[in-house]
Amino acid sequence: MLTQEIKIVMVGTTHPGNIGAAARAMHTMCFSRLALVDPQCDIDAVAYARASGADHILDDCQFHDGLADAIADCNCVVATSARRRSLSWPESDPRGIAEWLQQQAAGSRAAIVFGPEHSGLSNDELQLCNRMVVIPTNPEFGSLNVAAAIQILCYQIFAHQHASNPVEEAEPQEPRANSAEVESFFSHLQQNLERSGFLDPQKPGQIMQRLRRLYLRSDLTRNEINILRGTLSAFDRRLER
Amino acid sequence: MLTQEIKIVMVGTTHPGNIGAAARAMHTMCFSRLALVDPQCDIDAVAYARASGADHILDDCQFHDGLADAIADCNCVVATSARRRSLSWPESDPRGIAEWLQQQAAGSRAAIVFGPEHSGLSNDELQLCNRMVVIPTNPEFGSLNVAAAIQILCYQIFAHQHASNPVEEAEPQEPRANSAEVESFFSHLQQNLERSGFLDPQKPGQIMQRLRRLYLRSDLTRNEINILRGTLSAFDRRLER
Repeated sequence: MLTQEIKIVMVGTTHPGNIGAAARAMHTMCFSRLALVDPQCDIDAVAYARASGADHILDDCQFHDGLADAIADCNCVVATSARRRSLSWPESDPRGIAEWLQQQAAGSRAAIVFGPEHSGLSNDELQLCNRMVVIPTNPEFGSLNVAAAIQILCYQIFAHQHASNPVEEAEPQEPRANSAEVESFFSHLQQNLERSGFLDPQKPGQIMQRLRRLYLRSDLTRNEINILRGTLSAFDRRLER
Repeated sequence: MLTQEIKIVMVGTTHPGNIGAAARAMHTMCFSRLALVDPQCDIDAVAYARASGADHILDDCQFHDGLADAIADCNCVVATSARRRSLSWPESDPRGIAEWLQQQAAGSRAAIVFGPEHSGLSNDELQLCNRMVVIPTNPEFGSLNVAAAIQILCYQIFAHQHASNPVEEAEPQEPRANSAEVESFFSHLQQNLERSGFLDPQKPGQIMQRLRRLYLRSDLTRNEINILRGTLSAFDRRLER
């Protein structure tokens, strides 16, 4: 399911800044459908300032009386909750929800529902939903801002799709040096260290092994080998002057 | 590595609300160490309002002149970036960074660095760091709020620890060099390359950036730094004979 098809539903939001920040969070992660259920504030200049360019999401948001109306057209509805409920509900973490949404058939209509800032969703509202997602938090401070919670879930769903459908080609990388090139560098380095007096050929100790370990774990590129060889050659020339 | 041990570093932040929101985001995910580098605003009532109870993080935050000072005691430094750079740096997604931090030996000191709201980190700042993390976003709207970016990374690291079972002890490792030690090595290396004639101070090109990238991604140990410094000093002595 594409992020564009997933509706973000905010219930009883009291602060316009949170609605604006939610719009910005959504747009960064390719979400665009925002629904407001009984908002307790206007979408004012503060909301647009916090949206920081995601204005179209605020312009196009839909208003509903009651959660049932907002999700009437949806068949995959996820409730968010900060706390465990006495009546346990099928509960997932954000990755589990990202996975679940990914598995839904094409044409499904999903919504993720966020409660008011101070109280969260009521039990009646929760019971309209198919799944419950709990974002793991500090057991002593679970007070996630509602726009921050939206940011986390939108990120997790977007990142999950991104990881499973790598749209962009990986950046072309510099070619890695082959083993012969790396070994030539090590020979040159060893000569150089003996010449400078750092390495005693009679008592070499573990110096070369340690340097090998360092450079080998760095997965040197051909370009880097050329630079390193260049530094050694400059030293050779300097001594021959 | 425990979340409590990871420092969050905000560079040049201009809005107190973002500092407060960052403190709240950190506390929800069990992070507590905040460092501010050259903040362009005060920690005022707006910051405390947005912190929403995470006041102790604001009370205890540390102030620094320059990023180098803020991370001098750290040996695992992660830069955040919204965009790809021309000279590519070892780049991970948030899960990859969570995994990398998890693998660091006990006693390591980590920092995650966030740039100013409008510009992000400079290339010079980026070059002080071991890893770069890019949060995947909408290619047409990558404008993540800085506190939202902090929320995502803190969530991802916390969730990763939450999910993994830290039953096995990590293999004891050699202590990593801290940022101050690595920077001293780079200064010495640069002097040395200028002295040998390899580096023209008037036309340095990208040589030092490329060498920095190589050594920073190698996560140098203190022992390795000592060997590398030793090779440079031997060269110095050889020229003075």
